Amino acid sequence: MDGERPPQRRRGRPGHDQDAVLNAAVRLFNARGYDATSMFDVAETLGITKSTLYHHVSGKEQLLAMAVDRALDGLFEAAAQVSGEKRAIDRLERLISSSVLVLAERLELVTLLLRVRGNTEVEQHALARRREFDGIVTDLVKQAQAEGSIRSDVDAATAARLIFGMVNSLVEWYRPERGHPETLARTVVELAFRGLRTEATNTTQDDQRRQ
Amino acid sequence: MDGERPPQRRRGRPGHDQDAVLNAAVRLFNARGYDATSMFDVAETLGITKSTLYHHVSGKEQLLAMAVDRALDGLFEAAAQVSGEKRAIDRLERLISSSVLVLAERLELVTLLLRVRGNTEVEQHALARRREFDGIVTDLVKQAQAEGSIRSDVDAATAARLIFGMVNSLVEWYRPERGHPETLARTVVELAFRGLRTEATNTTQDDQRRQ
Repeated sequence: MDGERPPQRRRGRPGHDQDAVLNAAVRLFNARGYDATSMFDVAETLGITKSTLYHHVSGKEQLLAMAVDRALDGLFEAAAQVSGEKRAIDRLERLISSSVLVLAERLELVTLLLRVRGNTEVEQHALARRREFDGIVTDLVKQAQAEGSIRSDVDAATAARLIFGMVNSLVEWYRPERGHPETLARTVVELAFRGLRTEATNTTQDDQRRQ
Repeated sequence: MDGERPPQRRRGRPGHDQDAVLNAAVRLFNARGYDATSMFDVAETLGITKSTLYHHVSGKEQLLAMAVDRALDGLFEAAAQVSGEKRAIDRLERLISSSVLVLAERLELVTLLLRVRGNTEVEQHALARRREFDGIVTDLVKQAQAEGSIRSDVDAATAARLIFGMVNSLVEWYRPERGHPETLARTVVELAFRGLRTEATNTTQDDQRRQ
């Protein structure tokens, strides 16, 4: 049987329907694994038939492609938005901060993205875009080193990986009830760029090293 | 057919044989997924029969239990070793540093540990030990805040999660050829406790905030 939703609704609000389908699919992929989830499972969760589901999307791979693209689009939009800042350190800090907000807001999409291992063309494309984004972050670290605002004794690519290790860890533990995303974004930036030590102990240790 | 290895070797070097079995199994679990890997696959990789494999281990779940316990034992040993330091900040920094070394050394074991989702009793036990370890780190952050060496404006549990977000990200990108583990451990500690900014830009921004 088909046609659980009135056709005018489906035609009238295609965006809404596709969002609902995508969100349901992504939650299932994350909970059961992409390979273990069928289009029938997705249809069942939505309370629609498989044939209705195929009115919205061409198949499981399209759902995966849409999901990882939305996650990546959020990160690339954040990267585009910081280009107005004059100093590289400001662009870098704003990008890290915005990335935390993107993850908090698109947590299920990014969770799925981070599990992609490159088994298909869609996954290969997602990995290539992730590498491109990592390259943007690494370049910003290098530029900030060149302008003298980031310590030069740290490898830029390693720094970029470690910072995004922190940011990406949100998919493991972040829950909206654990605090406001803006507060979390500020904590990540403070930790990465100023460190957890109080200034007093920083100075003490510097003095100890000089002796 | 059984008995590919001479019995005296199997009896004479049980540790060696069990290590080889465990390492092969963990590599397969990480590459194909635990559920998708059979005892036959493990035996095939080792070039032994399934019945020989069962001389070494009781089954797949024992392999999983041994693997995650070895990963966790490394982290708990690191926690025990820092107890001699007088200041909490020193215990915390040493523990983070040692954890990086444990991850670099037991990368495949920790990779498997971090994928465990609690579907079985073995996995539940591993998750409980992970929470216990997280609790140790959070307590150290709190103690370091109480002694005034860590900023008090950062939530201790969040700080612990972010630091281990960095440390655990090693399973995604660390390769021995990307530099010495000791250097990486130092970078993680420097980033987490002193931050990436040079002192000059730290001061500048502090001044800007005061205006």
